[in-house]
Amino acid sequence: MSVRRQLKLGAMLHGVGSSTSAWRHPDASADASVNFELYKKWVTKAEAGKLDLVFIADGLYINEKSIPHFLNRFEPLTILSALAGVSQHIGLVGTLSTSYSEPFTVARQFGSLDTISGGRAGWNIVTSPLEGSALNYGKKEHPDHDLRYRIATEFIEVARGLWDSWEDDAFVRDKASGVFFDPAKLHTLNHQGEFFSVKGPLNIARSRQGHPVIFQAGSSEVGKNYAAKHADAIFTGHETLEDAVSFYRDVKKRAATFGRNPDNVLVFPGISPIIGSTEEEAERKYQETASLVSAEDALRYLGRYFEHHDFSQYELDAPFPELGDLGRNSFQSTTDRIKQNAKEKGLTLREAALQTATPRSGFIGTPEQVADKLQQWFEQGGADGFMIGSAVPNALEQFIDQVVPILQQRGLFRTEYESDTLRGNLGLPIPKNRYVEQKDGVPSEDHQTSGV
Amino acid sequence: MSVRRQLKLGAMLHGVGSSTSAWRHPDASADASVNFELYKKWVTKAEAGKLDLVFIADGLYINEKSIPHFLNRFEPLTILSALAGVSQHIGLVGTLSTSYSEPFTVARQFGSLDTISGGRAGWNIVTSPLEGSALNYGKKEHPDHDLRYRIATEFIEVARGLWDSWEDDAFVRDKASGVFFDPAKLHTLNHQGEFFSVKGPLNIARSRQGHPVIFQAGSSEVGKNYAAKHADAIFTGHETLEDAVSFYRDVKKRAATFGRNPDNVLVFPGISPIIGSTEEEAERKYQETASLVSAEDALRYLGRYFEHHDFSQYELDAPFPELGDLGRNSFQSTTDRIKQNAKEKGLTLREAALQTATPRSGFIGTPEQVADKLQQWFEQGGADGFMIGSAVPNALEQFIDQVVPILQQRGLFRTEYESDTLRGNLGLPIPKNRYVEQKDGVPSEDHQTSGV
Repeated sequence: MSVRRQLKLGAMLHGVGSSTSAWRHPDASADASVNFELYKKWVTKAEAGKLDLVFIADGLYINEKSIPHFLNRFEPLTILSALAGVSQHIGLVGTLSTSYSEPFTVARQFGSLDTISGGRAGWNIVTSPLEGSALNYGKKEHPDHDLRYRIATEFIEVARGLWDSWEDDAFVRDKASGVFFDPAKLHTLNHQGEFFSVKGPLNIARSRQGHPVIFQAGSSEVGKNYAAKHADAIFTGHETLEDAVSFYRDVKKRAATFGRNPDNVLVFPGISPIIGSTEEEAERKYQETASLVSAEDALRYLGRYFEHHDFSQYELDAPFPELGDLGRNSFQSTTDRIKQNAKEKGLTLREAALQTATPRSGFIGTPEQVADKLQQWFEQGGADGFMIGSAVPNALEQFIDQVVPILQQRGLFRTEYESDTLRGNLGLPIPKNRYVEQKDGVPSEDHQTSGV
Repeated sequence: MSVRRQLKLGAMLHGVGSSTSAWRHPDASADASVNFELYKKWVTKAEAGKLDLVFIADGLYINEKSIPHFLNRFEPLTILSALAGVSQHIGLVGTLSTSYSEPFTVARQFGSLDTISGGRAGWNIVTSPLEGSALNYGKKEHPDHDLRYRIATEFIEVARGLWDSWEDDAFVRDKASGVFFDPAKLHTLNHQGEFFSVKGPLNIARSRQGHPVIFQAGSSEVGKNYAAKHADAIFTGHETLEDAVSFYRDVKKRAATFGRNPDNVLVFPGISPIIGSTEEEAERKYQETASLVSAEDALRYLGRYFEHHDFSQYELDAPFPELGDLGRNSFQSTTDRIKQNAKEKGLTLREAALQTATPRSGFIGTPEQVADKLQQWFEQGGADGFMIGSAVPNALEQFIDQVVPILQQRGLFRTEYESDTLRGNLGLPIPKNRYVEQKDGVPSEDHQTSGV
């Protein structure tokens, strides 16, 4: 029984929700984004459901137009660390930007979370799509898309180098002789690059899983190459199975081109299942939530993807406006898709905005229907696993109570954790320490598998 | 019954210890600095003892000469957040440098910890004494002592401004009307200063205690002024009651000069009690620990205070060498004291190094003797509270089991938490939001007290 035959599941912990108005639902906790008791309840539930991981998204800039969840929410490393204290098996993955942080601090904080949690940390590398981030970090301007990825490339190299500062058996701790560590197993990075200069060594050792699991969600050309080269897992989003399969093949092929084993790059489409006891009940739940979004809120939500562009200047029921290159330096692939979709389908601004603010998930239906679709995407090569978002209140709880048991009955999902590290549960290899590799002369990345 | 009549107690959680060789003790856990189960046990014990807070120190540079605890330890924000998840009442205070971090990130992470813990966070502001820190952060050189304090001054102003981004009642969350927040209660900082330019607003609201409690430990002239002006609590260290009283009066007077209520600046000498059932047993414990330190280890430990100076080049039993200004740009007050002490007492290098590496705590004795001395320092105006370090294994546990009950019997220490915020337990006021203050026209810092 290979672990790789089963699908993987993550839960997005998204407070009051990633849409503009989900908090208005009668069953929603309107303070959820800063309610630790709720986060604790969610992670406990996700762990009871044997999910692989929970995921915390992030952003570095808000203004009065930002959606509610972004205005007032926990910072990823602190909330993940707090959740580490109240969980045993589940992975703890969070977003952190390489455009506005220092590799030494980031490597340390994720390294520390990884050790605190016994090897359950994951880092979703983003390059910060929001232009405004520069204003909170004393920068004259936000680096352009390609430059951000060049910075991110050097950043992850530095972080990996710092994580390898200590070989796994460096700490001897021999009380009799007084030898605390073996100096031959301590390595100083001495990195001097284009963007960073970092001496090292890092003041924390590798965790039981070696390095935190690296997630990435880029879907531009540059982003896909970055993910295929550096990531252990790719977070993506598709409306159709066809698109999902095409993306999946694309990034797996790119991974192979970079000399990697494509099985070691897991693809996780994000989905927001809406579950009802009947198809009609599920559809009613979707309509109920969609109806909470005003046109004004939808325009504001749309504007965020386009560098906080003010869409209220256009006629609501006229065709979607011509925007030129607007949005290409922030959320490149998302804004390209919105424009293309509006053009192809001849949408008005109102229609395009509402569709963006309340996307109709393809995963709406009875538990069996949702399970069928997950199985289809998994078996037809569109996904290695799924990231479960919550478009309606209690969606995560319902997914775990009603869909997960079906997946388990079908042998598609675990009934017990195979490992107590995130890499172990995801079936990913432990990255070999670069300095040990140099000594051994073994160049491959994938020859050491994590114990399960 | 005023809270202010009782002393305050914090516990340093220091892994394998702040001395070079404590880890070699037969009862020591040699992996303590990266052992989360131990940290959990310690915070649980400290909370059972009704201590005000636990404290995590930090540093940003190591090399092969660093002492064991520094080589491989948890990062403060992550370990404190993890401990927030497993505690209810105790304060969670950690060190973070203003010389190598960004105010937006620091304000966010401490704000998030403060909200996760329900108002129990504290930030010990340091300016990074270690020259090597610059090498891990791509800086050509470590800023000099006074420049570091100028940066720290602007940094705390920015952090406080960001923490005030949202007035306490800004979040309306009215589901019927769809109003999530009141825009009149959201404030954008727009800071443009000498060192930082930060727009804001912060994407997390103030916690129940307003701002994290600010600790500071500077004891140079510049450092004392900084602490007296900006800190809620000062962490210090003295060998004699006379010195403690003199320091206490000095900083309280400085606070008054800055227009502050001196009662709102708490002074915490750090002590490392060694407790025995008899005086002889306590003394034996000290000697046992001191004997673990080799002259070589002591020289290395000494060297760290002097910019990693190599003291092995000098004759061990010759008089303490002439060092000029060495050390004045890193640990200014500590190195001044070491030099002066060596000169006054005519110490050899060996003696000075051993005294530095294994300082003989003045708080050695039976539980009653230690309690007597704490009471004396507290009542004679040398301390508002104490930070308890562990010079020998299980010192914290013994202090809580044996000394705390005596202090409680004497009415000097609480038997129950007065509050569930750190400010509440310390009897410190909640800082008023600067924007509310502007509206109200009330300039004083101290007119609002935290609910107990």
